Amino acid sequence: MKIKYTLLKKDEKTDARRGILHTNHGDFDTPIFMPVGTQATVKTLSPEELKDIGSSVILANTYHLWLRPGELVVSKAGGLHPFMNYDGPILTDSGGFQVFSLAKNKKKDIVEEGVHFKSHLDGKPLLLTPELSIEIQNKLDSDIAMSFDECPPYPVTHEYMEKSVERTLRWAKRGKDVHKNENQSLFGIVQGGEFEDLRKHSAIETVKMNFDGYSIGGTSVGESKETMYKMIDDSVKYLPTDKPRYLMGVGDPIDILEGVQRGIDMFDCVLPTRIARHGNAFTKHGKINIRNEKFKEDFTPLDEACDCYACKHYTKAYIRHLIVCEESFGQRLMSIHNLRFLIKLTEDIRKSIEQDQFLEFKDAFIHNYKK
Amino acid sequence: MKIKYTLLKKDEKTDARRGILHTNHGDFDTPIFMPVGTQATVKTLSPEELKDIGSSVILANTYHLWLRPGELVVSKAGGLHPFMNYDGPILTDSGGFQVFSLAKNKKKDIVEEGVHFKSHLDGKPLLLTPELSIEIQNKLDSDIAMSFDECPPYPVTHEYMEKSVERTLRWAKRGKDVHKNENQSLFGIVQGGEFEDLRKHSAIETVKMNFDGYSIGGTSVGESKETMYKMIDDSVKYLPTDKPRYLMGVGDPIDILEGVQRGIDMFDCVLPTRIARHGNAFTKHGKINIRNEKFKEDFTPLDEACDCYACKHYTKAYIRHLIVCEESFGQRLMSIHNLRFLIKLTEDIRKSIEQDQFLEFKDAFIHNYKK
Repeated sequence: MKIKYTLLKKDEKTDARRGILHTNHGDFDTPIFMPVGTQATVKTLSPEELKDIGSSVILANTYHLWLRPGELVVSKAGGLHPFMNYDGPILTDSGGFQVFSLAKNKKKDIVEEGVHFKSHLDGKPLLLTPELSIEIQNKLDSDIAMSFDECPPYPVTHEYMEKSVERTLRWAKRGKDVHKNENQSLFGIVQGGEFEDLRKHSAIETVKMNFDGYSIGGTSVGESKETMYKMIDDSVKYLPTDKPRYLMGVGDPIDILEGVQRGIDMFDCVLPTRIARHGNAFTKHGKINIRNEKFKEDFTPLDEACDCYACKHYTKAYIRHLIVCEESFGQRLMSIHNLRFLIKLTEDIRKSIEQDQFLEFKDAFIHNYKK
Repeated sequence: MKIKYTLLKKDEKTDARRGILHTNHGDFDTPIFMPVGTQATVKTLSPEELKDIGSSVILANTYHLWLRPGELVVSKAGGLHPFMNYDGPILTDSGGFQVFSLAKNKKKDIVEEGVHFKSHLDGKPLLLTPELSIEIQNKLDSDIAMSFDECPPYPVTHEYMEKSVERTLRWAKRGKDVHKNENQSLFGIVQGGEFEDLRKHSAIETVKMNFDGYSIGGTSVGESKETMYKMIDDSVKYLPTDKPRYLMGVGDPIDILEGVQRGIDMFDCVLPTRIARHGNAFTKHGKINIRNEKFKEDFTPLDEACDCYACKHYTKAYIRHLIVCEESFGQRLMSIHNLRFLIKLTEDIRKSIEQDQFLEFKDAFIHNYKK
């Protein structure tokens, strides 16, 4: 069965919307933040811990799983869900982003067929094509797959981006044509960089192909915040209201609020777990670095307002000690906290939309966060 | 309140014994294996996971906690228990072993006062004395503290070992004289290397000081298994039956069985968690390395006979994938499994003593394990 999006409520003052996405592995409320389980594990966390922090959908990376352990191993295990002992909804990306960002020496050769590049692990030459990306994702058996797209660097010329958008459209069509897994939904991806006309063209042509949902790609590549928000505006307005919209790779709390305001339903990012491992924690008053000497004898939780396992049982002083000593339990406590912070943020956002208080909530959150 | 040892049953055919140790943070059954929480955390695990695997007492390292975060920070937190959110019994070592094994460039200067050495972290010159070791342990507020002893390398001459034993006896006395924490018990340590006369002398003189329990040190330093077992024999026979006996740094399953047979009640070792992080798992048929290619598509648990969280929910193929990718969740699953294996072993040992079947159990276990 394919996913189904139910729009519960549209905000009166903005494009924010409250919905539910129905999948074969359960429903989840939107807007939602999705933790990233790059290699079929959300770094440092168990599936039970993910449920404890309220996570209802996670992402896994096709590129990484293709290389290790290989999609055939996952397929023989019965797919990603049994392989990693996770029974909730799983989304896979196309591998495109990793090919463009991780390829050895970042050298790659983009041709009509796909992308030639070298493995970031052993330098082995590889070719990823739209068909292969879909085939791998079919075997991984995620609930939602992504079309294979080109992720151009920033900035590029209008001329380059135009060609790239056309190729991404052809790749989307080729991927859709070979997509066979009836229990897996497929999203199209809107590209076009910061060019309004190309975003429009990419969105309209992608929607014509009738995907199960739409992603907005090509943000968070070095552009200014204002440009990023405009990219969202220039894309979302051409997307149907009865399908979910997913802003890829965005996990900054303020960007999530700005995205929701523009009609985004789904977000993912490695940011909360990556910065956690380096000692950075979200708090309602912005980020803190727990390595700071001033926390050495601070026996209060990371964030007094937080209801996560780390904040309920551990102090800044203890977590600081663990992070300074590079103990993985410290990275785990920090990851739990940061993920809970973003998931709680989307819970609060959903409540605020239900109560027609989204803008007020957003302003108050940002006011506190920047204080 | 000090600890109290209750002897429940003595094996008829061997020196194996079944008992209970009563502490201010609960009782635990002996013989027992104690996971090592070097830096106030059992690497990769939460306190809840420790309880899940049946762990009833853990060890923490005085040397590491002295350096980071410092005993004063732990003391201000209210001691190790609140600092690390662990409410079960905690034992601390004296720091001696680490000073001898971790000192920068392994250079150290042993004088009557104590040991001059350089920090393994930053090379800073440090002096650890018997009094300071006890003072630090008092502040850490563990349930059981260890006397500061010299851990000579192996082999040394009888002449050197004799001097070392005398010094360790003087250090034990000095430490006992300054031990003030009425809620903390203090163990004496029997040294003497492989010399029967020195083990006897060390044991008798240490027992005269009337400690709350006795450790056997200086094993697992490179001697043969036969020599190690003889060191235990030569020490235990002079120890009182109404106090617990602790064989330090031993965690090999067969060594645990041999130790129990000789009257040992407590064991600790970093082995199960250290080898876990490198991909080695205990099974009833001996150790396996999960990195082995043959486990790539093995969708069975690490050990069919095991009841741990890792074996109940995850396959060798998945854990192999995590370990190969250096994902800490893999190290966590392996650590859970290996610790559960040793804790289950001591549970089975206790049952076998109760049922007058210890030797039969030991023989069957070893027969399987070496197969």
